Amino acid sequence: MGPHPAVAAIRLAVRRVLHDVLTDLSGPTGRAAGTPPLVLVACSGGADSMALASALAFEAPKLGIRAGGITIDHGLQAGSDLRAAEVVSRMTALRLDPVESVAVRVGRDGGPEAAARDARYSALDEAADRLGAAAVLLGHTRDDQAETVLLGLARGSGIRSLSGMAEVSGGPGRTRRYRRPFLHIDRQTARKACMVQSLPVWDDPHNIDPAYTRSRLRHEGLPALEKALGKGVVEALARTAQLSRDDADALDAWAADAEAGVRDEDGRLECAKLYALPPAVRRRVLRRAVVAAGSPAGSLFARHIEEVDRLITGWRGQGAINLPGRVEAQRQGGRLVIRQG
Amino acid sequence: MGPHPAVAAIRLAVRRVLHDVLTDLSGPTGRAAGTPPLVLVACSGGADSMALASALAFEAPKLGIRAGGITIDHGLQAGSDLRAAEVVSRMTALRLDPVESVAVRVGRDGGPEAAARDARYSALDEAADRLGAAAVLLGHTRDDQAETVLLGLARGSGIRSLSGMAEVSGGPGRTRRYRRPFLHIDRQTARKACMVQSLPVWDDPHNIDPAYTRSRLRHEGLPALEKALGKGVVEALARTAQLSRDDADALDAWAADAEAGVRDEDGRLECAKLYALPPAVRRRVLRRAVVAAGSPAGSLFARHIEEVDRLITGWRGQGAINLPGRVEAQRQGGRLVIRQG
Repeated sequence: MGPHPAVAAIRLAVRRVLHDVLTDLSGPTGRAAGTPPLVLVACSGGADSMALASALAFEAPKLGIRAGGITIDHGLQAGSDLRAAEVVSRMTALRLDPVESVAVRVGRDGGPEAAARDARYSALDEAADRLGAAAVLLGHTRDDQAETVLLGLARGSGIRSLSGMAEVSGGPGRTRRYRRPFLHIDRQTARKACMVQSLPVWDDPHNIDPAYTRSRLRHEGLPALEKALGKGVVEALARTAQLSRDDADALDAWAADAEAGVRDEDGRLECAKLYALPPAVRRRVLRRAVVAAGSPAGSLFARHIEEVDRLITGWRGQGAINLPGRVEAQRQGGRLVIRQG
Repeated sequence: MGPHPAVAAIRLAVRRVLHDVLTDLSGPTGRAAGTPPLVLVACSGGADSMALASALAFEAPKLGIRAGGITIDHGLQAGSDLRAAEVVSRMTALRLDPVESVAVRVGRDGGPEAAARDARYSALDEAADRLGAAAVLLGHTRDDQAETVLLGLARGSGIRSLSGMAEVSGGPGRTRRYRRPFLHIDRQTARKACMVQSLPVWDDPHNIDPAYTRSRLRHEGLPALEKALGKGVVEALARTAQLSRDDADALDAWAADAEAGVRDEDGRLECAKLYALPPAVRRRVLRRAVVAAGSPAGSLFARHIEEVDRLITGWRGQGAINLPGRVEAQRQGGRLVIRQG
């Protein structure tokens, strides 16, 4: 008799990703013989990442891969160090090796969720570098992806923010470090896989704390949306993420191509040529130019770019437009001049 | 003292659209002197369309435009004919002329909401043709737009379905017949404008009937989402619609361009050239080819196109793929053959 379907599903998802990691490693430069690659799992002790840790521990040895685990102690709750130690012992029980707990100090930049995330990824990057890991697996599920899409939707800043989390993403200097094998697995399956394998799981109180946007979305927003629209909403949101990501990539590539063609011999943007581009491409070219001039991408909203765009499409002699990062955009003699003041 | 801000807002929105209509009419061919153009409002008697009717009645004469109104009697509730007659008398009281009630028979195709919509637009098209109207104004608000985006999101079929309703859209043979002046006006403003103008409004019981998806979304889904994500959700969804529409238009144009370049001298799709396209463009080229082969666009989902795409990106000798409308796609000797069986 084979494993429970939930266990089979999480193992298959991890096996596919490990194959991808090996394919990447055996690329043009090959890899040194005799050094089995190391893959780490980032594990909070919650059901998603415990399921992921168990599947990694099961699949990695069969592919000649060493499996290790990292848990991050965010230090945000009393006793978080004890809990981290407990997660370490659970990972050790799964025969992951090496296993580490890394304590971080969470700042305040960008709100509590963003600050915790920044601290977590810095620590994971540092650990992966230090241990020479080929990849770090993250336990985000399809439900997390759906929530991320809705969070992006609430920003109203276009399809890039609807594209959720990538299956593969980079850390500093490493473009394909992070892998998310569970983006097509639902949270219920991960939880079930833990249950049938008798793995203890820890429920993060933040996940049910209504002070957190994501928690409100999870426990109130998404269930209400499912009640209105039907049970397929989570899957539809996850598919939207993938389609939006591909669309955003294609349009970014188009904008990068188009940019050279709309500059004059002195490298200035020509309004007439910008006008001839499709609006979606023109706005991306403008965004690139504003960021290149020094405007921080994170502070630049759709409404800023719309205002710059009106210098092209709704020209009626308006003055310079002030943009984040002390960048100014103005139209001068048929050219668009964008520079830092 | 000027009008109440809500009244000023709805009048400005209508004035802008009437200017656009006049600009369209004075295009290359000009228009016959001495025939003031007619603009109709589609009015259910609800707050949104009563506000629209009042603004049209106020603004049109100032621009030399005749303003008329149509109400549709869907015949779905007892006494709907009496109500339609009441809406006619309310429009007449606003000095709209001509004013008509048109009775329709709602079929069953595509569910109750789609069937009612189809019957309504057929009747509006017929009335606009018969009366020689230059445009028909529709009272959809920013809130309706937000709901439409969420309904599209639930389909999970990509950014075209996130693009909501267009500010300008066509009827048969008339590409710019319908105008939605209120897509940036919220429902509350329309209701307020009716109140301060002492206009009686009629609340459609369908709008609060939980049997209707849109009604559930309006009264449960969206409020829960706003509670989780904050008050800006409706605005963010409406902005997403506009951005997604522009992005989808640009990508459709790219796919139409790319299609010629990926066919061999006999017009067959070459797999190697398809492979080289960005995934977002390739999937659109494939979709166009499948629709051209006879697959009904409305029955063709993202998962169908993904399966065809795997003939290009994940070729392992798989057989013919069955698509809606008895269309088959198969790979033969480096070519993709798509035809109706």
